[in-house]
Amino acid sequence: MPPPLTAALPQLLQPKAIAVIGASQRGGRANGVINNLRNCGYGGEIFGVNPRYTEVLGCPCVPSVRDLPPTVECIVIAIGAEAACDVLEDAFAHGIRAAIVLSAGFGEGGHGGARGERLRALAARGMCICGPNCFGLINVKAGMAAYSGPLMRPLRAGPVALVSQSGGLGASVFAPLMTDRELGFSHFVSCGNQLGATIEDYVAYFLDDPDITVVVCIVEALRNPKKLAAVARTAHARRKSLVFFQVGRSAAGRELTASHTGALVDNGDILAAFLRRCGILQVATHDELVETVELLANAPRDEAVGRDVIVISGSGGGAAVAADVLSDAGAPLAPLTAATRERIAAVMPEFGSVTNPIDATGSMYDDATLLPKLFDAILAEPGRPVIAASVNARPAGNPNMRRFAATIADVARASGRTLVAYQYSPLGGPLDIEVVHTLHDANVPFLLGTSNAMRAIRVLAQRSEYWARAVSDGATVTPVVDQRADRSWDFLSAREKLVASGVPVVAAELARSEDEAAAIAQRLATPVAVKAEAPGLLHKSDIGCVALNCAGYDAVREAFRTVTANCAKAGFGQVGALIQPMVSGVAEAFAGIIDDPLFGPAVCFGMGGIFVEILHDTTIEMAPLSHEAARDMIARTKGARLLDGARGRKAGDVAALADLLVRLGDFAAAHAGAFRALDLNPIIVGPAGAGVIAVDIAIEETKDKP
Amino acid sequence: MPPPLTAALPQLLQPKAIAVIGASQRGGRANGVINNLRNCGYGGEIFGVNPRYTEVLGCPCVPSVRDLPPTVECIVIAIGAEAACDVLEDAFAHGIRAAIVLSAGFGEGGHGGARGERLRALAARGMCICGPNCFGLINVKAGMAAYSGPLMRPLRAGPVALVSQSGGLGASVFAPLMTDRELGFSHFVSCGNQLGATIEDYVAYFLDDPDITVVVCIVEALRNPKKLAAVARTAHARRKSLVFFQVGRSAAGRELTASHTGALVDNGDILAAFLRRCGILQVATHDELVETVELLANAPRDEAVGRDVIVISGSGGGAAVAADVLSDAGAPLAPLTAATRERIAAVMPEFGSVTNPIDATGSMYDDATLLPKLFDAILAEPGRPVIAASVNARPAGNPNMRRFAATIADVARASGRTLVAYQYSPLGGPLDIEVVHTLHDANVPFLLGTSNAMRAIRVLAQRSEYWARAVSDGATVTPVVDQRADRSWDFLSAREKLVASGVPVVAAELARSEDEAAAIAQRLATPVAVKAEAPGLLHKSDIGCVALNCAGYDAVREAFRTVTANCAKAGFGQVGALIQPMVSGVAEAFAGIIDDPLFGPAVCFGMGGIFVEILHDTTIEMAPLSHEAARDMIARTKGARLLDGARGRKAGDVAALADLLVRLGDFAAAHAGAFRALDLNPIIVGPAGAGVIAVDIAIEETKDKP
Repeated sequence: MPPPLTAALPQLLQPKAIAVIGASQRGGRANGVINNLRNCGYGGEIFGVNPRYTEVLGCPCVPSVRDLPPTVECIVIAIGAEAACDVLEDAFAHGIRAAIVLSAGFGEGGHGGARGERLRALAARGMCICGPNCFGLINVKAGMAAYSGPLMRPLRAGPVALVSQSGGLGASVFAPLMTDRELGFSHFVSCGNQLGATIEDYVAYFLDDPDITVVVCIVEALRNPKKLAAVARTAHARRKSLVFFQVGRSAAGRELTASHTGALVDNGDILAAFLRRCGILQVATHDELVETVELLANAPRDEAVGRDVIVISGSGGGAAVAADVLSDAGAPLAPLTAATRERIAAVMPEFGSVTNPIDATGSMYDDATLLPKLFDAILAEPGRPVIAASVNARPAGNPNMRRFAATIADVARASGRTLVAYQYSPLGGPLDIEVVHTLHDANVPFLLGTSNAMRAIRVLAQRSEYWARAVSDGATVTPVVDQRADRSWDFLSAREKLVASGVPVVAAELARSEDEAAAIAQRLATPVAVKAEAPGLLHKSDIGCVALNCAGYDAVREAFRTVTANCAKAGFGQVGALIQPMVSGVAEAFAGIIDDPLFGPAVCFGMGGIFVEILHDTTIEMAPLSHEAARDMIARTKGARLLDGARGRKAGDVAALADLLVRLGDFAAAHAGAFRALDLNPIIVGPAGAGVIAVDIAIEETKDKP
Repeated sequence: MPPPLTAALPQLLQPKAIAVIGASQRGGRANGVINNLRNCGYGGEIFGVNPRYTEVLGCPCVPSVRDLPPTVECIVIAIGAEAACDVLEDAFAHGIRAAIVLSAGFGEGGHGGARGERLRALAARGMCICGPNCFGLINVKAGMAAYSGPLMRPLRAGPVALVSQSGGLGASVFAPLMTDRELGFSHFVSCGNQLGATIEDYVAYFLDDPDITVVVCIVEALRNPKKLAAVARTAHARRKSLVFFQVGRSAAGRELTASHTGALVDNGDILAAFLRRCGILQVATHDELVETVELLANAPRDEAVGRDVIVISGSGGGAAVAADVLSDAGAPLAPLTAATRERIAAVMPEFGSVTNPIDATGSMYDDATLLPKLFDAILAEPGRPVIAASVNARPAGNPNMRRFAATIADVARASGRTLVAYQYSPLGGPLDIEVVHTLHDANVPFLLGTSNAMRAIRVLAQRSEYWARAVSDGATVTPVVDQRADRSWDFLSAREKLVASGVPVVAAELARSEDEAAAIAQRLATPVAVKAEAPGLLHKSDIGCVALNCAGYDAVREAFRTVTANCAKAGFGQVGALIQPMVSGVAEAFAGIIDDPLFGPAVCFGMGGIFVEILHDTTIEMAPLSHEAARDMIARTKGARLLDGARGRKAGDVAALADLLVRLGDFAAAHAGAFRALDLNPIIVGPAGAGVIAVDIAIEETKDKP
């Protein structure tokens, strides 16, 4: 059994000595790496590998990796993909266990799949490979930059580790935060296409470093979500922040699928549900990511903040913009208590506002005595809101603004509360770094741009919520079980399994002839639905395979003839028709399971009819579900308002609907791997207390059916 | 007749000499203004006014405004509001016609309403007042900064004029664009509460300046939309860009109102509809505003660009982020033709992508020959898409990036096309100003941050659309006519007026007794609706005042008794009940008029039932409407998909529905001022070709009913 590739992560991230393949006296990408290694103060020896030279940029150069001394623990590949495979294999044979592959051409966009296989084979034998198609990596603490992009200097060591599939996007987080706000990083890994080490491997490694408290990932696709769930549990236990930005949502698109559930859900939705389940923070845009990193790295880790925000602004317009942004983001402004408002009014200058957002006017910056009194008035407010105060660090050298920052820092230190400083715009020349230092020294983040600042603050509240829940709630993910044997998914057998799991599904009997149909209907003594049944038949009503409200002997016989004829016309093998009693309620709902090959099963919910069909008004969460999660899934749909009993409608049985979702989640977890998707559509929702019941089931089998 | 206050705008914006009231040897806000006037190189004489001194900061100081020489054309008020009124009146008597009032306390938040009236009275007599409660103003071209905020230096003159109610927000547009990108401004006016000169006055003045091509407004509330509509026509005729950012949307809230239409529409919606009608560009966030200003000021004014965007990125991740942002913003990526893709493939390095967004890999920056070939391949693409290429101006001094910028500039010059350069992140130290200059010199805007860059590009396409339409389409706004006399708005009279305007409304007869009701129903020989009718009665069905589908003598009589009894129970004076034939169709819709006291009448549309009730899925446009606008209003609702005939539904008569909206718009314009709001709800939509008909009308009268 070979060692796991992660065994050599230390050699990759902090090699004793390093060799750069492709170093040349004629310049090129390899030389950029050598220059960066020198400029960052790397303490180990640097070798070039190139048969043409004995020296490049003052480094010894050898003809082949086989000539490298045993201190070289890592090689950097900056040559073409075909030659790279040979070199990597030679290096492995020579005992080198870590490699950074900058080159592309290992299967991206269809080029070089065979070369990709050679990389994977080396990884399987225990070689730790970063890339291919990457910028390399920077270990700030160790002063090691095996990195081909422009290197910002000075590098500042600190608590943030960053791994990004895209080198360019990663650099646009790493460099600006270090430059503008002197935020320190431990590592920046441009991991490229993850044919060897994956994002999950790096994250696990970072979480073991006591100096790292924030791990940031920029991902296009995950390779190993099961491992991610496990490392998220570690992050949760250690109160470390894990934040993800997904790139390429719009291109990922929806998989072609026959079920409703499949069509309603795209890869981005499932990834988001998976991250929520793992307690991993997710941001929507690159700019929001940058501010979120600054916030998570500096805000106190020991205060559980509420969702509410109090904004203190030095201008009425600035306060109004913050309120607009929070409103758009669905983040609440804390409604101040009457007592707080009175306390604020007692200290506020004549033209300020005493409601939230608080416009403390320009006097806030000019009058050194105002802010402490204002904070005194606010800090007694219950609910632990985050308090965000506008600070302008441009132009530098404004003594009032420096004093203002010092006051905020004093209050933060004395109170231990989560205070955030933000500037209206991210733009406009260098920041007054003294203001930033003053704030950072007191655990006060300094955020740039009202929009991204307010969105980042919302993420902080999310972190508190994730950290408040039990570890076991968070990152439990059902193992994907192969149940290919269990494949008899016609309506009656599916119904039997669902009912056994506690999911209510209407009773049905299979009629194989008109006579049987009529007899069953007579026995039921109620109007019935007649639905053709045949292997592979989905979306029955679209092709005339469903007749509803059939009452009486003749009607049932005719319905049987019609639906089975339409079924045959559509080319499905004939089985017969299901006869079900008609059920009525106050509304129709929809629920489904999507069993993702990578992430496992998830449950999808929406109200019926146009809410699903036209509005795609659905929510999705990973299975299994708690009751609370199920209720939340319902509440988050717009259509849920149909069930609230307003405007003369009858209230629906939301409790029973939530219970159905919980049991469907258990069913999904228990049958992981057994089908691709399952729809319960429609589910008839009875009035409060009367329960819910699914009246149709559609199942999409997995594609690789044997 | 006094001269209009705008007559003295030149004295306000470019006074021969200026006096600052409140200048003091003990410092303060007035002294900040004097320092700024000196530092910006103001050529006129500066006086202080303060009885305690004869000199302040080296300027002559006089005891009273009455002692000022006649060259002083403008005074700056930096003293308390009460004293300010006396000084302003003295100054006016002394012949001074322009004043900048920095002080607050003239009616804001309920303080000093009487003082506000004194300011308004002066304005009415022809004094041009900027403020109150403002930072003052900067005339860059004239080197005049009567401004109390921190002044950035050097000031750069250029084509952008900015007027902002909020000084802080305005400064956060003005200073960063001048600092980072050396974008030139003509003026920055912090106009405060507009008790004298309004935003419209400044805009009109700026549009007459041939050097100004972009006018930017940051507004909380408009004072004079009728004038705005007129100045927008001027902007349109002169091909000048007019861009608005509204602040305080979330606080503005919805007016309390009884009609559906009123409840569905907030002030922000009406302002947005008004701006669209005027052809004024609107942005959603402060950050988006800044990038939009850079874009409008630099992009060619003579190319009509399409909505499509082509993105060329040096990294796959960066390309994917741009695609995500465009997708979220509803802006389309141009689908490249096969011919274009082939041309791209012929020049693209092995690992780039030939679909849009185009990932040209890092080679794009390194290989000087690649970009021109790539542009050659792209520029033949039809549809005039905007072409956005990623450029990194940080760190400064990268020769590859400078060469890359020069190539973009060459292509822009040679092609005359709209090219835009953008950097992933707005952050990270000073820009390489040489890159920025190179781009600007060729009319290539340089935008910061992918999100805001892509959103700004969408605004540019909007400008092309506005400029393409006839002037008369754009800024025609119906004058608000007072029609208080015309107040007989019961169902039958309203129906008569609507039908006379071509709006189809179902016939109805008023029954005053059970007998009459039964007789009318018998004559109609069809199931009927019975609806109580009484003055002020709205939302009839919520209080049991509507009975539908009444067939037969007894049913109609009973319905009459029930609805009139419920009407009486709800406390409405009794008139009787309307008897209408029942109408059926394929869907229900909703339309309404809201007659805004400031902006005039607008038409609101949505599909019926949950689309209006739960989803607030409505669109609004100012009256009157073109057929195209009406069709667009329908298409923009999510609910419109109910009418498209998909998934087994019958297609609805969209053409007739659009016609109803056009005629309702004409009706709204003709009856402006006659009522607050009018609902047609529901409107029964027949199948295609069968027409539409409104079956109920609700009217909310204006509040100031005599």
